[in-house]
Amino acid sequence: MRHEHVISAKQFSRADIEAVLDRAADFAADPQAASGHEGALLALAFFEPSTRTKMSFETAIKRLGGDTIDMGPVEFSSVSKGETLADTLRVLEGYADGIVLRHPMEGAATMASEFIDVPLFNAGDGAGQHPTQTLLDLFTIREEVGLDDLTIGIMGDLKYGRTVHSLAQALTNFDTRQHFISPDSLRLPRSVRYDLHEQGAQVREHEGYEEILSELDVLYVTRIQRERFPDEDEYHAVAGKYRLDAETIREYNEDLTVLHPLPRVDEIAADVDDLPGATYFEQAHNGVPVRMALLDMLL
Amino acid sequence: MRHEHVISAKQFSRADIEAVLDRAADFAADPQAASGHEGALLALAFFEPSTRTKMSFETAIKRLGGDTIDMGPVEFSSVSKGETLADTLRVLEGYADGIVLRHPMEGAATMASEFIDVPLFNAGDGAGQHPTQTLLDLFTIREEVGLDDLTIGIMGDLKYGRTVHSLAQALTNFDTRQHFISPDSLRLPRSVRYDLHEQGAQVREHEGYEEILSELDVLYVTRIQRERFPDEDEYHAVAGKYRLDAETIREYNEDLTVLHPLPRVDEIAADVDDLPGATYFEQAHNGVPVRMALLDMLL
Amino acid sequence: MRHEHVISAKQFSRADIEAVLDRAADFAADPQAASGHEGALLALAFFEPSTRTKMSFETAIKRLGGDTIDMGPVEFSSVSKGETLADTLRVLEGYADGIVLRHPMEGAATMASEFIDVPLFNAGDGAGQHPTQTLLDLFTIREEVGLDDLTIGIMGDLKYGRTVHSLAQALTNFDTRQHFISPDSLRLPRSVRYDLHEQGAQVREHEGYEEILSELDVLYVTRIQRERFPDEDEYHAVAGKYRLDAETIREYNEDLTVLHPLPRVDEIAADVDDLPGATYFEQAHNGVPVRMALLDMLL
Repeated sequence: MRHEHVISAKQFSRADIEAVLDRAADFAADPQAASGHEGALLALAFFEPSTRTKMSFETAIKRLGGDTIDMGPVEFSSVSKGETLADTLRVLEGYADGIVLRHPMEGAATMASEFIDVPLFNAGDGAGQHPTQTLLDLFTIREEVGLDDLTIGIMGDLKYGRTVHSLAQALTNFDTRQHFISPDSLRLPRSVRYDLHEQGAQVREHEGYEEILSELDVLYVTRIQRERFPDEDEYHAVAGKYRLDAETIREYNEDLTVLHPLPRVDEIAADVDDLPGATYFEQAHNGVPVRMALLDMLL
Repeated sequence: MRHEHVISAKQFSRADIEAVLDRAADFAADPQAASGHEGALLALAFFEPSTRTKMSFETAIKRLGGDTIDMGPVEFSSVSKGETLADTLRVLEGYADGIVLRHPMEGAATMASEFIDVPLFNAGDGAGQHPTQTLLDLFTIREEVGLDDLTIGIMGDLKYGRTVHSLAQALTNFDTRQHFISPDSLRLPRSVRYDLHEQGAQVREHEGYEEILSELDVLYVTRIQRERFPDEDEYHAVAGKYRLDAETIREYNEDLTVLHPLPRVDEIAADVDDLPGATYFEQAHNGVPVRMALLDMLL
Repeated sequence: MRHEHVISAKQFSRADIEAVLDRAADFAADPQAASGHEGALLALAFFEPSTRTKMSFETAIKRLGGDTIDMGPVEFSSVSKGETLADTLRVLEGYADGIVLRHPMEGAATMASEFIDVPLFNAGDGAGQHPTQTLLDLFTIREEVGLDDLTIGIMGDLKYGRTVHSLAQALTNFDTRQHFISPDSLRLPRSVRYDLHEQGAQVREHEGYEEILSELDVLYVTRIQRERFPDEDEYHAVAGKYRLDAETIREYNEDLTVLHPLPRVDEIAADVDDLPGATYFEQAHNGVPVRMALLDMLL
């Protein structure tokens, strides 16, 4: 790759994506062969809580033979004294060989990348991008069913979910049919639909999922957040319609591969966990080889 | 050991305990000889505050040549988004070669061990078990006075203290006489006394400690918590009776070995620190070789 | 150096300072040559928030081949159960080969050093000392303009700023002229002025900085804190007088080297960042080789 920073899923061509996924597959096959970055230091600057993303970046750099330095929770950092993000990162770049940034402000990573000389990895910027999540989603889909001639359903909160927007856009690099399943109030934003249309994507929208389940290779489920609804009753009425259980899968599509970016609350019932197509924990685990690949290519 | 997880002090036979303590003695004698786990990653999942336990596990794995990945305070993790403990740990097992779990819920470690394939180390589950603390207590007693033909007093909050229950049960593997010293309101629970009785332990209970001090090889002191009493006055009246100072030790039993799981507040006066029998800091330090032994045997 | 602990900038002779800065210069020139401390563990005990100091100690020990164990935010440690600082550190010295301590109480590091046998590094004790900051300030000045025949201005909050007091005292080891620039209410404390006078320092005080700017080789700017003033208006009136911008520098002294311990809020305008004399980010980065030198000499 010729990229210096990892800011957005949009920056990757099909060739870029395949190069990362191929390298990740090497690491997944043989994690021990992954050294060569002894002494490399990766700074973790998380301005918002994170478990999976932070710990899998941490695992990735340590599996590569390197180490982390962690800014820690922002409440306990000098950011609380009024320092700008720019100043904080300009200090960090003197300590570390790369920086992982999560920030609540959309566009933070783009802005930050302009004055930082070490590679910057966007680990989520508000409602914006979360490109390393997209790459691990793509890796998981490729490992399970392949990325071409793919029929995928994406279900849940399609309005606010940044992982959904990135994934939908990245999939336009491949021969896929995308079905978006959500309540009307949480439809994919017009701007994202417009972009997909421009890129010639094959897209359809649905309010219920049973009608389409049998056609899908993959169903990507996301969480519907309580805060999006005026009251509890309305939330429960809507959320109930987008809850997946083992019985439904067995009835409509036994071969379905189920993904979820996690954490889940109850949009996937626990009895799905034991089905052969339940792939969300493996998907989370894939964060390690995918981030190893990115670090290996850019540090 | 044939154990996969370390959940409870009850799981260990006398032979198991001796194997761990022997290995720990090797590491205590020569910490540099402890490599062989290069690249091993230990996940730290502490759902409650901890200093000693967490940092000594961290020290142990790093002295062994490995490293940690730390979930961090639960307030800053995705647990705050409503994820179940089971889901959190199933993600972590894909990152790390072992998991250390502290959780406020009794039974959490047992439950967790059922769906986790990497070794799980229980670092305290509510009022339940804290087996690695018990092993370091046993290690310290063995180093100082030996575990057989031992007369030990255990003093303070015997009702709620999980370290006390585990230690008392583990000691039944050895030839020991146990004296329990506490206010009536904080006596050892009936269930624990019943278990000890069943195992044929030699047990006696006391309200004051002076009467028995001269007979003891070891006095294990624990903290009496303010929260257990209806008002400050009653707390101070009771706590004052179970406070140990240098003068008392010199008067009744100069050879007494004093242990405490720490942190202490004022149940052991500072002037005890300079006596030859004050062993509580060494006891804390022993957490490192004991946890090195466990990690070495199970990872 | 014959020192066991690093407690105060006052403990260093000119020869000590030069030995540390020379070693730091080696590390700055070739960070890869810095191994030899494989397996060394440094405990981080920060009882107050810190970003730069903590992360640069962390970077320093890791660049040397060692690792850290981190007590974490004090809210999540056993200190919250009422443990004394002395007890906490006596436990830590059994885990680590050295301890870095930041504590809100002035004198904490001196007190702590009396009962700790591993090297203790004072990373700031309230309004007291912050000796490693002083060493990195000196290192930066030496690299940029040299420490002898130096004319330096120190501006901002001179009353409460611990970095200022340490720096002023350390500079008396060299042939320097010191100009102190502050509002009357934030003048250097009488005791510090007295000490400087006793050591034969060449010192002058000013209320404004334009009058002196052309004479200076270095201007060391510190933050004026809002909390020092009875109301917002008075704060803004005063702070505005001690704000530095590019136009002023170009007008009065194009060759000026500008330092700041960071974090800055707005006492240095962003347009100063692009001037050749803006050295505060490099100054922060110099924390790594300077702390590597100290760790290398004392661990």
